[in-house]
Amino acid sequence: MAFKIGLLGLGTVGTGTAQILQQPAGRHPMVQEIVIHKVGVRSLDKPRSISLPPEVLTTDLAGIVTDPAIDIVVEVLGGLEPARSLILQAIAHSKHVVTANKAVISRYGDEIFTAANQAGVYVLLEGAVGGGIPVIQPLKQSLGVNQIRSITGIVNGTTNYILTKMQTTGGSFTDILSEAQQLGYAEADPTADVDGLDAADKIAILASLAFGGRIKLQDIHCEGIRQVSAADIAYAEKLGFVIKLLGVAKRDSEVTVDTPEEEILQVRVHPTLVPQVHPLANISDVYNAILVEGEPIGQVMFFGPGAGSGPTASAVVSDLVNIAAVLKTGGGQEGMHPLLSCTHQHYCAIAPISELVTRFYTRFLTQDHPGVIGSLGTCFGKYNVSLESIVQTGFQGDLAEIVVVTHDVREGNFRQALEQIRTLDAVNSIPSILRVL
Amino acid sequence: MAFKIGLLGLGTVGTGTAQILQQPAGRHPMVQEIVIHKVGVRSLDKPRSISLPPEVLTTDLAGIVTDPAIDIVVEVLGGLEPARSLILQAIAHSKHVVTANKAVISRYGDEIFTAANQAGVYVLLEGAVGGGIPVIQPLKQSLGVNQIRSITGIVNGTTNYILTKMQTTGGSFTDILSEAQQLGYAEADPTADVDGLDAADKIAILASLAFGGRIKLQDIHCEGIRQVSAADIAYAEKLGFVIKLLGVAKRDSEVTVDTPEEEILQVRVHPTLVPQVHPLANISDVYNAILVEGEPIGQVMFFGPGAGSGPTASAVVSDLVNIAAVLKTGGGQEGMHPLLSCTHQHYCAIAPISELVTRFYTRFLTQDHPGVIGSLGTCFGKYNVSLESIVQTGFQGDLAEIVVVTHDVREGNFRQALEQIRTLDAVNSIPSILRVL
Repeated sequence: MAFKIGLLGLGTVGTGTAQILQQPAGRHPMVQEIVIHKVGVRSLDKPRSISLPPEVLTTDLAGIVTDPAIDIVVEVLGGLEPARSLILQAIAHSKHVVTANKAVISRYGDEIFTAANQAGVYVLLEGAVGGGIPVIQPLKQSLGVNQIRSITGIVNGTTNYILTKMQTTGGSFTDILSEAQQLGYAEADPTADVDGLDAADKIAILASLAFGGRIKLQDIHCEGIRQVSAADIAYAEKLGFVIKLLGVAKRDSEVTVDTPEEEILQVRVHPTLVPQVHPLANISDVYNAILVEGEPIGQVMFFGPGAGSGPTASAVVSDLVNIAAVLKTGGGQEGMHPLLSCTHQHYCAIAPISELVTRFYTRFLTQDHPGVIGSLGTCFGKYNVSLESIVQTGFQGDLAEIVVVTHDVREGNFRQALEQIRTLDAVNSIPSILRVL
Repeated sequence: MAFKIGLLGLGTVGTGTAQILQQPAGRHPMVQEIVIHKVGVRSLDKPRSISLPPEVLTTDLAGIVTDPAIDIVVEVLGGLEPARSLILQAIAHSKHVVTANKAVISRYGDEIFTAANQAGVYVLLEGAVGGGIPVIQPLKQSLGVNQIRSITGIVNGTTNYILTKMQTTGGSFTDILSEAQQLGYAEADPTADVDGLDAADKIAILASLAFGGRIKLQDIHCEGIRQVSAADIAYAEKLGFVIKLLGVAKRDSEVTVDTPEEEILQVRVHPTLVPQVHPLANISDVYNAILVEGEPIGQVMFFGPGAGSGPTASAVVSDLVNIAAVLKTGGGQEGMHPLLSCTHQHYCAIAPISELVTRFYTRFLTQDHPGVIGSLGTCFGKYNVSLESIVQTGFQGDLAEIVVVTHDVREGNFRQALEQIRTLDAVNSIPSILRVL
């Protein structure tokens, strides 16, 4: 039995996908049953590292998603359009879809999965989060029997590389970013990575799977790593922490029997002080890791390469094999496979960031006067912000540098206290505000 | 639609399984469709932490595996018999089986999967390795599209607890073992754990899935941790290593297109010096982790609680949900689901340990004479064993203590050199021989 695929895009991931399918030896026997029928590219003449029969290559992408011979469309174009429209067209033509496109899924997942359910086709996306790390399938097929409490992930390799290098070399964000751009670990326009947008796409997808509801991307509080300084990394280390850009999705309360879907989630992306003994603290360079906590499983973590041709292609082909396996065994004759399809319809309620209860690390530059620490402490106290420590760590020029670490406090209260602190004559600036895991 | 299960055993894992099924809120909707029909126990009168209707409990285990109302039998008795016979009877009565029994599967997997394939039923075993960590399903459903090169795992929580405590406290094996026994982390008879037998069962199962062939348990070279001393742990730390009990399964050569099944594997369990920067070095206490390396995915690692009621029950229920999902969608009408069934028939060839090429760490106690280091070096050279370092680390009483670290050498050559070294007058004993990752 052979399943014919149409591959949209022959860039890094598309090439990796074709390479696995062309060399099935030593892999699961199902890989042999997947046949590349058409590959849609922008230019037929571009030199490529892979050889495909000339009749397979085409620039007619719309022709692929409507081709009656094709069973599964693989979208590895990236970007929003034409990816979204081609996916929807493929679904409308009763084709299953495999995609590694986190941006399309996090923005248009609602539209895409509604269409897929109506058409009775599968849309799988293992490659969209964590590159090759199997995390989407385990969430859908294994961990879903747990009441998931939280998902905490290092899901962007570029920022993890930058933060790791800042930590090991003491370099500044700007210098390390340029270096990462030269090495190809960061894009010429690094916005999506360093401002946390890519991580937000991914945590939206993970939260949706873990908590069984759709997530509005605009509800996710998102901060990037531009404001993380070498000084913060050094202080964090002294305090027993490393700074990581985390995507966090968390159930705010216990699950209740009657209304599990009415609970409120926290979903956020921000640089975070992670205790050095925490499993995520040791994830370095471009690696990704996703930590899932649930009842009764406790903590499990998935670690691996978060991007790249080979790893992402591994994820794409595993999705292809999963769809092929269901089709081959006659699955779907009595309805969609409930662990492969997307069944949830409602939107999750997400708490505003002001309601978050967490610890904070904050660095102040102040005049070097007696009584400054006292007036900071008084302001925090007024807004019910309980402090763990307040330490003058040194000087920057004429200014005293003071680092404050709070206990668990409500973010809204903390921000109000900071507003008042900003008005104090003795306070020059507040260069860093970071949350603590 | 409801799927009726018969649970064999209501110990730790059985109770955890029943608890998940009794509280489906906040879990995948499929959990609600799984109904406990019968639970087989040894005594009906034993006080239990879970309440079940009296008509569900029975001491007639054979009645459960032959009960026409039951769709899936869950075997969580542990041990070899009656577990093996009951599993085979259940299969003979066309029931699917979920088990967490690594001992039965590693010894009788051949018989069990042959019977299951003939009967057209599934035998799933996620709970048999790594407790709640999803590793069996990812190997079968995601990672199988890769050419797997190796699986390296900390798969026994008891020994990892003992080694971690030896490392952090400097205590001896015997003292820490007693402590672990008092805490319930080690059995009264600790043989299966500390001699590596449990780890051998688990690496046999993982190797079989990763390399697509059956594994003869007796072909696995197995050493436990009894001979690991506090001194070795301290020296290892100085050299930049931690000592871990690893299960290792590795392809010896590249995959060839024509005869992928004729390749030779290494499968072994032994205490190992792991570089402190290696992802497995930070796995502490009773946690487990499994590192999979393959082409093109690179390295991925799965981390979590390796045992315990809740985690293992999570794995068992995820298997139940996977079988139910396939049955519900009419899967199996055109044959078994190729990613859930066991398709391989042949036995993998396993190289004898003497053929292994690895680095060694060895500690000698010798007379304190000039020239001893020279004669050790000469013996190793004679057998083509290339040394990285040879250092007199201190004294134990009158005897000099010498630590040798080799480059990659063939184990057979290394052992021959040691045989000759043992005959040297100056050599008193060789208290430790450990491999280096």
